[in-house]
Amino acid sequence: MNIKPLGDRVVIKKIEVEEKTKGGIVLPNSAKEQPQMAEVLAVGPAIANDEKRKDEIKVGDKVIFSKYAGTEVKLDGEEYTILKLNDILAVVE
Amino acid sequence: MNIKPLGDRVVIKKIEVEEKTKGGIVLPNSAKEQPQMAEVLAVGPAIANDEKRKDEIKVGDKVIFSKYAGTEVKLDGEEYTILKLNDILAVVE
Amino acid sequence: MNIKPLGDRVVIKKIEVEEKTKGGIVLPNSAKEQPQMAEVLAVGPAIANDEKRKDEIKVGDKVIFSKYAGTEVKLDGEEYTILKLNDILAVVE
Amino acid sequence: MNIKPLGDRVVIKKIEVEEKTKGGIVLPNSAKEQPQMAEVLAVGPAIANDEKRKDEIKVGDKVIFSKYAGTEVKLDGEEYTILKLNDILAVVE
Amino acid sequence: MNIKPLGDRVVIKKIEVEEKTKGGIVLPNSAKEQPQMAEVLAVGPAIANDEKRKDEIKVGDKVIFSKYAGTEVKLDGEEYTILKLNDILAVVE
Amino acid sequence: MNIKPLGDRVVIKKIEVEEKTKGGIVLPNSAKEQPQMAEVLAVGPAIANDEKRKDEIKVGDKVIFSKYAGTEVKLDGEEYTILKLNDILAVVE
Amino acid sequence: MNIKPLGDRVVIKKIEVEEKTKGGIVLPNSAKEQPQMAEVLAVGPAIANDEKRKDEIKVGDKVIFSKYAGTEVKLDGEEYTILKLNDILAVVE
Repeated sequence: MNIKPLGDRVVIKKIEVEEKTKGGIVLPNSAKEQPQMAEVLAVGPAIANDEKRKDEIKVGDKVIFSKYAGTEVKLDGEEYTILKLNDILAVVE
Repeated sequence: MNIKPLGDRVVIKKIEVEEKTKGGIVLPNSAKEQPQMAEVLAVGPAIANDEKRKDEIKVGDKVIFSKYAGTEVKLDGEEYTILKLNDILAVVE
Repeated sequence: MNIKPLGDRVVIKKIEVEEKTKGGIVLPNSAKEQPQMAEVLAVGPAIANDEKRKDEIKVGDKVIFSKYAGTEVKLDGEEYTILKLNDILAVVE
Repeated sequence: MNIKPLGDRVVIKKIEVEEKTKGGIVLPNSAKEQPQMAEVLAVGPAIANDEKRKDEIKVGDKVIFSKYAGTEVKLDGEEYTILKLNDILAVVE
Repeated sequence: MNIKPLGDRVVIKKIEVEEKTKGGIVLPNSAKEQPQMAEVLAVGPAIANDEKRKDEIKVGDKVIFSKYAGTEVKLDGEEYTILKLNDILAVVE
Repeated sequence: MNIKPLGDRVVIKKIEVEEKTKGGIVLPNSAKEQPQMAEVLAVGPAIANDEKRKDEIKVGDKVIFSKYAGTEVKLDGEEYTILKLNDILAVVE
Repeated sequence: MNIKPLGDRVVIKKIEVEEKTKGGIVLPNSAKEQPQMAEVLAVGPAIANDEKRKDEIKVGDKVIFSKYAGTEVKLDGEEYTILKLNDILAVVE
C-alpha cells in the first residue's frame, strides 16, 4: 500500500528504540515516552514544488519532530504519522 | 441527487470497514471509532482552478482525512462529509 | 421588501421539510433540528465581482450551509438568514 | 454637531419600532430586544476610496446590522452607533 | 515636555466634562464613567506617511475613541492616552 | 559586555525614579509600580534596514513602553529589557 | 552526530553557569532557574537564504533566548534546544 501525502505534508515512521531501565528491565511500548525520531517515507507535492524547501528533506532522512504533532494512521497493521513539514524540527545525520 | 461542493471543498463518503473484536463479535456502527478512510465523490471549483493543487486529488481517490473534520450531511438517506481540501491528509493507492 | 446583502454575503431562506417521527407524529418546528437546506434569494456584489467565484452560486440555487452560521433576520413576518459565501458548503441539484 | 467616521467605519442611527405585546401593551425601550435596523448617517473615507465597495452603501440607506456590533456613543443627547462596514449585513429597500 | 508617538499611534488628552447627577450633585472623577471624547495632541509618523490616512486626523481634532483602548501615561503630572489610530472611531466637528 | 538585539528588537534600560510617599518615606524598588520610562541602548538590524521606521528611534532616546512588554535579562549584574519596537509607545523629549 | 535544523530554526546548547547560594552551597541543576544563555551550534537554511537576516547570527555566537521557547532534544546523551530564530532575543559579545 502506498500513501501520498497532500500539500506540504510528510509521512514518517517512528523509529522505536529498545530501552532499558537502570535495573535492566526492557520497557514495553506503552510505558515509554513517545519517540521523537522518525524516518521519512513520503514527501508532499507542495514541498517538491517549493524551490526554497525541496532540498531540506528527502525520503529516507532521519528526522526529529515535535512530539504529538500530526495525525497517526494505521494501514495494513503498520502505524504511520502524517504531519506538516513545519512540524519537523531537524534532520539528523 | 448531485452535490457540488463550493470553493476548496471536497465531498467524500466514508468507507465502512466491518470490524470484529478479538472475540469475534461484529461491532455495530455506534460502538466503533470514526472511520478515517473515505472515497472522493466531488471536488470544488477552487481546487480545479488551482494549477498547483488540481493534480493532488480526483474523484474516486481513496483518502485519509482528519477525524471530526468537516460537516456531515444526510441526503436521500445517504451520509456524506463535506470538508476542505486541507483537511485531507493523504491519498492511499 | 428587498434585501441587498453587502460584500461576500448571501441571503437565503431555509427550506422547511415536514418531518414525522417513526410513530407518525408530525413534529412542530421547535422540536426539530435546525434545517441545513436553503434556497438562495440574493447574492452580494463582492461575489458577483469575483471572477473566480461568481459562477459557483446564483439566485434560486438550493444549498447546504453550516448549521448556526450567519444571522437570522425577520422582515415583514418572514425569516431569512444572511451569511457569508464561505459558510455555504455545497449546491444541491 | 457633525461626526466623521474614520477608516472603514459607518455612523448609523437605530430605527426604533413601536412594538406591542399580543395583549396590546406598548413595551418601553428597556424591555424590547435591541433593534437591528438603522439608517446610515455618515460613511468613512476608506469606503469612499474603495472602488469595489463605495457603491454598496450611502447616506440615507436603511441597513440591517449585527446585533451588539460597534460602539454606541451619545452626542447632544442623541445616540449613535459607529461600526465597521463589515458589520453591516444588508441594505433594505 | 514633548511626546512623539511611534508608528501608527496617536497621543490624545481626554476632555473632562463636568457632570451633575439629576439631583444636582457634581460627581468626582472616580464616580464617573470613562470619558470617550479627547483632543489630538500628536500623530505618529506612520500615519503622516500613509497617503490614504494622513488626511483623516490632525493635531487639535476632537475625537471619539474606544473606551479602555490604548495606554494611559502620566508625564509632569498630566495624564495622556497613547493609542493606535484604529482605536479612534470618529472626528467630531 | 555588548548586547546586539535581533530583528526588530530594542534593548532598553529602565529609568528608576526615586519616589516618596506623601508621608515622605522613600519606597524601595519592590513596593513601587513598574517604571514605564527607559533609555534606548541598542536597536536591532531590522529597524535600521526599514526605510520607514529607522528614523523613529535611536540610541539614547528616552521612551515610554508598554508595561510588562518584553523580556528582562540580567547581565553582569545589570538589568535590561529586550522588547519589540512595536511595544515602544512614544519617544519623550 | 550532526543535527541540521529545518527552515528558520536554530540549534543551540545552553551554557550552564555554576551557581552558588549566598551560603556557598553549589546548587544542582534541578534547583536552578532555566538558563537563558546559549551557544549557537547550527543555523537553518531559511536563515542562510534570507538576505536580510543571514548576518544576524552565526555558529559560535553566544545568544540570549526566550525561556521555555523551542523544543529540547537529547542525542547521544547530550541535550540541545531547537528553536525559531524569532525566539532568539539578542547576541551577546
